Amino acid sequence: MRTAAIIGTGLIGTSAALALNRRGVRVYLADRDEDTLRTAASLGAGEVGAPPERVDLAIVAVPPAYVADVLVEAQGRGLARTYTDVASVKADPQHAAAARGVDPETYIGGHPLAGVERSGPLAARADLFDGRPWVLTPASATGREALNRALELISLCGAVPVVMDAAEHDHAVALISHTPHVVAALMAARLEHAHEDAARIAGPGVRDVTRVAGGDPRLWEEILTANSTAVADVLEDYAADLAKVVAALRALGAQDLEKRGTGRADLVDLLRRGNAGQSRIPGKHGAPRANYVAVAVVLSDAPGELARLFAAAGAAGVNIEDVRIEHSPGQAVGLVTLQVAPDSADTLAQRLTERGWDVQR
Amino acid sequence: MRTAAIIGTGLIGTSAALALNRRGVRVYLADRDEDTLRTAASLGAGEVGAPPERVDLAIVAVPPAYVADVLVEAQGRGLARTYTDVASVKADPQHAAAARGVDPETYIGGHPLAGVERSGPLAARADLFDGRPWVLTPASATGREALNRALELISLCGAVPVVMDAAEHDHAVALISHTPHVVAALMAARLEHAHEDAARIAGPGVRDVTRVAGGDPRLWEEILTANSTAVADVLEDYAADLAKVVAALRALGAQDLEKRGTGRADLVDLLRRGNAGQSRIPGKHGAPRANYVAVAVVLSDAPGELARLFAAAGAAGVNIEDVRIEHSPGQAVGLVTLQVAPDSADTLAQRLTERGWDVQR
Repeated sequence: MRTAAIIGTGLIGTSAALALNRRGVRVYLADRDEDTLRTAASLGAGEVGAPPERVDLAIVAVPPAYVADVLVEAQGRGLARTYTDVASVKADPQHAAAARGVDPETYIGGHPLAGVERSGPLAARADLFDGRPWVLTPASATGREALNRALELISLCGAVPVVMDAAEHDHAVALISHTPHVVAALMAARLEHAHEDAARIAGPGVRDVTRVAGGDPRLWEEILTANSTAVADVLEDYAADLAKVVAALRALGAQDLEKRGTGRADLVDLLRRGNAGQSRIPGKHGAPRANYVAVAVVLSDAPGELARLFAAAGAAGVNIEDVRIEHSPGQAVGLVTLQVAPDSADTLAQRLTERGWDVQR
Repeated sequence: MRTAAIIGTGLIGTSAALALNRRGVRVYLADRDEDTLRTAASLGAGEVGAPPERVDLAIVAVPPAYVADVLVEAQGRGLARTYTDVASVKADPQHAAAARGVDPETYIGGHPLAGVERSGPLAARADLFDGRPWVLTPASATGREALNRALELISLCGAVPVVMDAAEHDHAVALISHTPHVVAALMAARLEHAHEDAARIAGPGVRDVTRVAGGDPRLWEEILTANSTAVADVLEDYAADLAKVVAALRALGAQDLEKRGTGRADLVDLLRRGNAGQSRIPGKHGAPRANYVAVAVVLSDAPGELARLFAAAGAAGVNIEDVRIEHSPGQAVGLVTLQVAPDSADTLAQRLTERGWDVQR
């Protein structure tokens, strides 16, 4: 790929432009908002204006509802040899594109899973897609050249390509991104008017469950609206399970022994299914979490303590796969949990203990 | 406090015993399970058997359903001058204790919020309660001596005392611990039979939302059963909001413009309430999360990289309040987000940049 056009210089468009620029691709930028466009250009994302000749790939980085219109216009003026988009839903834009006569041979749908926490060109980073999944949703009429150009884009951005059917994609993101967001927001909403003492005793569990609920409501309204049916479908299944759990908990408070037995069985069933589902989520590098072993270390809250700890781990030649610092309200002591490969855990624990760390296995 | 008796040498009882021992208190251990008792003693938690004279404090560390019986028996033989328990619910055990004639003057209910991820004496740690909230639920008849002994216990364990009414406590833990667990399990259960490709593109959001769903089903069945009514109450409010969100999402898929407008308003309302609730959860040291600023740093996945990073942060005199490593499936590059005090963020970013780190603000 030698040349590319980016239509829409928000977070995703500008980040892709920065990534391509970094790898020597000549990038032409367009956005209907002049300020946004100038900001992206000033960040080094590319040149403003129409390219002098047909580019290798045009990347349509506009909201889902505008993808088809922009594709029709761009193909109409022969902007590029191949086209892709980066919208967070795929079925609707692709149906709309087909309905408006977009040439399916040169177009392939795409969705990089990155960056939903922020927006705008100022938040853009050349490494935004590093190691993230980037879904492609080819239609039956999609040509080989469009597929390969999109794969080249993903490779240049350092992302990991995953090929899926458009409808399958929308159900997948409803399940692993949009529904978890709603679930977290619903839980967080329960805390809005919680008693001060209840908030005071909140710990790491509820903090993790509700973390994503801190996201921008306008951005999430747009995301959820674009995939509303698929999300509603998953939430209805969730609601059915929820009703069963409420019934089970009510039964557990009953006098009737048989009712209590049924309640108990239903509750345990849900908890076991929760275990099974949780274990399906990949950890870092796509490895299941269970492949790592936790080594917990007690440390004081002084500057430099973490540095000393990681220096000691580094000296032991152990690669830390994940870190969690447990929060200690009101106390100058914390617990750091290091996730490491199973064959490194003993070495790490031993070396840290030798160096005087308080290690908990 | 010079002497204490621990009845029940599971995770909580043994951890309290270890903490008291560490501070010079003479501890006597009892458990109806001989193996559990021997294990606790072998860990240095205290001496097996009845104390030669009345102890200063007896800590009843048995499941909620047995607290009243154990208190009656212990008071009957004059085991201690004062009594407390550590059960995860408070109203039922306290009602049962009153009904069975437990002397209310010498007894105070308690609940340390720690350790729900593991169980048994082998998981015990002297520092299990360091910095954690420890709720006390005095009744009107609770005497000053019982209150002060319990406060001394909490202080010796390094925990933070919070005084609440028993029913208020049960509602608070339903809200900030038990309901989040059910919510996470329900979400994780949706992933049990997810398509492999959906699991493949799961990211940090859903991983956090479902993390606690990996907990032991038997332990959580016990916890949820003991507080079933309060949890069911919160879940019913949650279900009402959920039904509204599903209706809003369905409305967003409708042709009718007015319906879509209502759907949009309801959805944004939930997302905003989620923002408000999420901001009420304290961060480390009880400080609101918003008090910290994120400094993100790109780093390769080699051993020693984190050590170098933390050494550089330490050299800048900056205290890292929290760390998150973003997972990068299939890539040898990661993003580490450091949470620091606002007045440290610029210094940290500047010093790291000077030393050649790729810092993202």
